[in-house]
Amino acid sequence: MFEKFNETIKTNNLIEKNDTILMGVSGGADSVYLFFGLLSLKEKYNLNLKCAHINHGIRESAKRDELYVKSLCDKYDVEFNLLSTNMNEYALKEKLSKEEAGRKLRYDFFNKIATSKAKIALAHNFDDNMETILFRIIRGTGISGLRGIPYKRDNIIRPLLDTKRQTIEEELKKLGIPWMLDETNLINDYSRNMLRNELIPFVEKNFNTSFKESLNRLRLNSTEIYDFISKETKAYTNKNYLEVEKVIDLDQGLLNEVIRTFILRNKNNLNSIDRNHIEAFINLMKSENGKSINLPGINLYKHDDKIFAQGKTIDRNESSLNLGENFTDFGKFELSKDKLNGEHVIVIDYESINGNLKVTKRESGDRFNPIGLKGSKKLKDFFNDIKISPFLRNEIPIIRDEKDIVWVVPYRMSENNKIKEDTKNKLWIKWEEK
Amino acid sequence: MFEKFNETIKTNNLIEKNDTILMGVSGGADSVYLFFGLLSLKEKYNLNLKCAHINHGIRESAKRDELYVKSLCDKYDVEFNLLSTNMNEYALKEKLSKEEAGRKLRYDFFNKIATSKAKIALAHNFDDNMETILFRIIRGTGISGLRGIPYKRDNIIRPLLDTKRQTIEEELKKLGIPWMLDETNLINDYSRNMLRNELIPFVEKNFNTSFKESLNRLRLNSTEIYDFISKETKAYTNKNYLEVEKVIDLDQGLLNEVIRTFILRNKNNLNSIDRNHIEAFINLMKSENGKSINLPGINLYKHDDKIFAQGKTIDRNESSLNLGENFTDFGKFELSKDKLNGEHVIVIDYESINGNLKVTKRESGDRFNPIGLKGSKKLKDFFNDIKISPFLRNEIPIIRDEKDIVWVVPYRMSENNKIKEDTKNKLWIKWEEK
Repeated sequence: MFEKFNETIKTNNLIEKNDTILMGVSGGADSVYLFFGLLSLKEKYNLNLKCAHINHGIRESAKRDELYVKSLCDKYDVEFNLLSTNMNEYALKEKLSKEEAGRKLRYDFFNKIATSKAKIALAHNFDDNMETILFRIIRGTGISGLRGIPYKRDNIIRPLLDTKRQTIEEELKKLGIPWMLDETNLINDYSRNMLRNELIPFVEKNFNTSFKESLNRLRLNSTEIYDFISKETKAYTNKNYLEVEKVIDLDQGLLNEVIRTFILRNKNNLNSIDRNHIEAFINLMKSENGKSINLPGINLYKHDDKIFAQGKTIDRNESSLNLGENFTDFGKFELSKDKLNGEHVIVIDYESINGNLKVTKRESGDRFNPIGLKGSKKLKDFFNDIKISPFLRNEIPIIRDEKDIVWVVPYRMSENNKIKEDTKNKLWIKWEEK
Repeated sequence: MFEKFNETIKTNNLIEKNDTILMGVSGGADSVYLFFGLLSLKEKYNLNLKCAHINHGIRESAKRDELYVKSLCDKYDVEFNLLSTNMNEYALKEKLSKEEAGRKLRYDFFNKIATSKAKIALAHNFDDNMETILFRIIRGTGISGLRGIPYKRDNIIRPLLDTKRQTIEEELKKLGIPWMLDETNLINDYSRNMLRNELIPFVEKNFNTSFKESLNRLRLNSTEIYDFISKETKAYTNKNYLEVEKVIDLDQGLLNEVIRTFILRNKNNLNSIDRNHIEAFINLMKSENGKSINLPGINLYKHDDKIFAQGKTIDRNESSLNLGENFTDFGKFELSKDKLNGEHVIVIDYESINGNLKVTKRESGDRFNPIGLKGSKKLKDFFNDIKISPFLRNEIPIIRDEKDIVWVVPYRMSENNKIKEDTKNKLWIKWEEK
């Protein structure tokens, strides 16, 4: 029982001791199986299990499903959270497809209940994953999309991805646990149901009874190869610009992946980006500074022998800074109460800090008080003064406390934090570019 | 007209000036289009065009197709070669499927007519290629198989791979050129026809009218990525053994590809090789010398911190050696009438050579006369004498003329070729390991 489920959790490190896990439980076989699977690990991992159920209000039997899930929660002492909603109305109102509306309602609800530390466990199974991969093959994908649904992404975990639908139903039967007709299947759009109920059975019957296993092998091979490629591209795409000299002589296959990764990070998707656009991108890299091109959903500029994207810029994850070494998206920060040496070090008055320190990129409207100056000025003006190209400004780490900017790294710290005569405790902060 | 056809030829360097090209022409639309396409380039490239037609003897109309192709050849002054055969009888006799029998007959016939310098042009089109890729996805494949049918392989070229079936038929109509019902479609097995006539139309109708274009983008992406991976793996797989130390710390994705490439070269295919076998292979690398494992169709040994495959060994292409530098599978050989210096150099009597020199690997029954010895001995015994591990013997370059072994590189040259008092012309041969 729960064999693949346990294996998946182990192999992918989905669960740690003392985790809080919010399970999405519709009452269908998959989510009920997830419920009992996690329940079986509750003691071992000292889990804090919670349950979220959505009554979509689209069927008479929705109330019955709700009551079933609630009864499970009551019986096994799991916190029950309910969202009652009318999905169809919501879809109409928000001009979304039913599928999109359902997904949005689900994720909004889950994120509302889950605290920042909690994990959200979803019940996608092996067959769901293979259907998704086939769907992508049909609709169009590259190797990247053949990797299927991720086991883990942000705070979401999917421990059933290796467990087959058939196994789930068989094991539930053996355990004598009932389940409801899964409402989410009714939410799935027409194409998805046609793929599941007509296309795949047709292929299995006429071509290969182990079709899904074949897809799964392709998934594993793609994942493995893509992971390797990703590692190779990462060195070139960890900034919000591409350095032409560093990438232009890369092997063509790798260069194209670097460009795709760069576009993906700046445009958030690769929709409508085809090979001609990649070629145009390469031509831009080879052309003079000052040139630009417009691709679907993204504008690109060559400046200072670098390629920049206009519009969305890549997210730099803000990191809180604590005493000791802090490895962040903006490089390494060392914080110490003892003196630090190095090229980029400041020392500040420990007591002058309001709340916690963190490192972020600039935000619109930022102001600060450069040391030696009376009064504050706009960060934008400061950047203009020290002649930082507008293209590069998102790359500049800004250390701030909960009130003000402390250090525009490495250019200038704030007047507010400087050492004074009555300073009792000092804090050294050292930055090393990554 | 012939737009994609010309583009494909250019992009992939399929044709060179003065080429002799043997076209396979069934009389169907694809091959008739190929015929006229190549004819249109005849002058530009000074092509020597020949035609091969097979009368499979499976339909009444086969004779009509034969006569049609012959009439084209006569009209446009192209050499016509005919094979009349009964495919069904042949299939029965050789215990092959009709499809396999047809393929074997075709290739045997083509190879018989084509001289070693000639290219064989086949008429596989864009749609054929996409069908092949879909077939592989369904039956099971990795990224490697998603690359589809190659434009060029050995002496075979496929200039229609980017041209759609529809384009072919439309352009032939515009040119007023008739074609016959393609007999090879009837040879195709049941599954292929079901894929072409039922599965693909179903997907196009219900999911994506540009399904084949989607597959083609996946093909391009896979090709690009696989080419990159291949270059990376090549450094580790260019011998008939794997050096454990060199590969064991590679990134997992790359290591797996190295192993797959190694198995492919030694077993000629990857049939039945799954992830468990790759894992067993890795365990073998980590175990002690002397251990072995048996995988489907291939036995593997660890010896001298290397992994060897038993059975089939990789082909080392024999290369003829000429004056100057020769880059071969066995390293670089420099031949000169002037003195050469280096670690591995011999000098021989130019007149003692019988015919041309070439470098090959050992062959069973090889004998030679090591310099300083009276009479010949078995090469096997010689290897035993100098304590070359049996595992490594296929790696040893053997230079031979048309009669005898000249040099077992770099260990011993032959007595037959040594410099004598009356030697007029000397030849220096220098070897550099790759």
